[in-house]
Amino acid sequence: NHVVVCGYGRNGKQAVQKLMAYKQPFVIIELNEEIVDRYSEDHLLFIHGNASEDEVLIRAGIRNASTLICALPSDADNLFIVLSARQINPKLKIISRATEESSYQKLKLAGADNVIMPDKIGGDHMASLVVVPDLVEFLDNLSVSGEHDSINVEQVPFEKICTDGVELAIMDLDLRKKTGCSIIGYKSADGEYIVNPEPSMVLKKDSKLILIGRPNQIDKLKQLYHV
Amino acid sequence: NHVVVCGYGRNGKQAVQKLMAYKQPFVIIELNEEIVDRYSEDHLLFIHGNASEDEVLIRAGIRNASTLICALPSDADNLFIVLSARQINPKLKIISRATEESSYQKLKLAGADNVIMPDKIGGDHMASLVVVPDLVEFLDNLSVSGEHDSINVEQVPFEKICTDGVELAIMDLDLRKKTGCSIIGYKSADGEYIVNPEPSMVLKKDSKLILIGRPNQIDKLKQLYHV
Ligand SMILES: [Ca+2]
Ligand SMILES: [Ca+2]
Repeated sequence: NHVVVCGYGRNGKQAVQKLMAYKQPFVIIELNEEIVDRYSEDHLLFIHGNASEDEVLIRAGIRNASTLICALPSDADNLFIVLSARQINPKLKIISRATEESSYQKLKLAGADNVIMPDKIGGDHMASLVVVPDLVEFLDNLSVSGEHDSINVEQVPFEKICTDGVELAIMDLDLRKKTGCSIIGYKSADGEYIVNPEPSMVLKKDSKLILIGRPNQIDKLKQLYHV
Repeated sequence: NHVVVCGYGRNGKQAVQKLMAYKQPFVIIELNEEIVDRYSEDHLLFIHGNASEDEVLIRAGIRNASTLICALPSDADNLFIVLSARQINPKLKIISRATEESSYQKLKLAGADNVIMPDKIGGDHMASLVVVPDLVEFLDNLSVSGEHDSINVEQVPFEKICTDGVELAIMDLDLRKKTGCSIIGYKSADGEYIVNPEPSMVLKKDSKLILIGRPNQIDKLKQLYHV
């Protein structure tokens, strides 16, 4: 139930840093021996090898991994690995980076669940800083994870809110009074998101609420609902 | 009062696409003649030249530009341009990309207001998709700008809310009842952000409220406060 990270370049390194902050177990596959030697001292678990070989993926435990992060600089390499990993483990969650826009659809077809295009995100970001700098700054600084005392956004599943299974309206939860947090979103059982749901909306089974708050409010929320 | 974009690679191209969506005037400086020829047909305003030359920046109108977006692949080139542009126009808002972590501070020192590291954002993103996929998906799909009928987050300055200049508490605004939007943040006059401010908090002069809503709610908000 670990994460396999392919490639310890800038992208992979940043992903690994965050995984460590979240205390997620992981193993890194890296072809460059120099990099393996240099960073092995940081107590990172490396497999020195070519992730394009099935055998290397299997050595990294791809069969019982929860997630694969494919962060190589070459889209062709990522595509090859995504396809191989999907064949070996149909249940694996696969997240791949892509450089070229045209690779996005190919990686999806090959079996990636999420495709991240750093240059595209970066470009979007730069333009948004021109037009709505305050909003970008505010949203950038919202913490969805990491240190216990820094989180601003949290999700709570229906079963934790309505423990007896009875469906309730949002206003009957009195969440703001009880925790200080505000509800900003709702995810339905079939994966649809509703932004800023109405107080009269009734929570359905298998749904999730998304809440915003300052860290102490998020803490209260977690305690109240055992998240 | 336009935006100058240096470099029409993947990064710059994405920034330009967004700027067009926001109807922001811009001019692109690009050294590669082939790129200039190919995209000039798309009615983009190009200056063919090297942005490292002051004369080229001046031809792009850097003296009365509002913003510079430096999106070249080389950190050294970006640094050189940031420094040159800052010398020419001290009031310019400068946003630069950086590849190496070690360039971040240098670009800031040279005069960049914001430094964007695509690989870092991409890596963060991939790791967050492992741990809090729903939250990442929800926040990613919030639109801060772009098409009129898609915006989910908006900011309203104090002067638009309290038109007579009298400072009011958030609860006295009745914003949820009047517009359907929920308040998720507050930016004070000295630039500090408060996440999920208390209903009893009094809005101060030169502050801003940050609100979330569905597009029709945001519309109501904009109409009510002439944003
Ligand atoms: Ca969580
Ligand atoms: Ca706006």
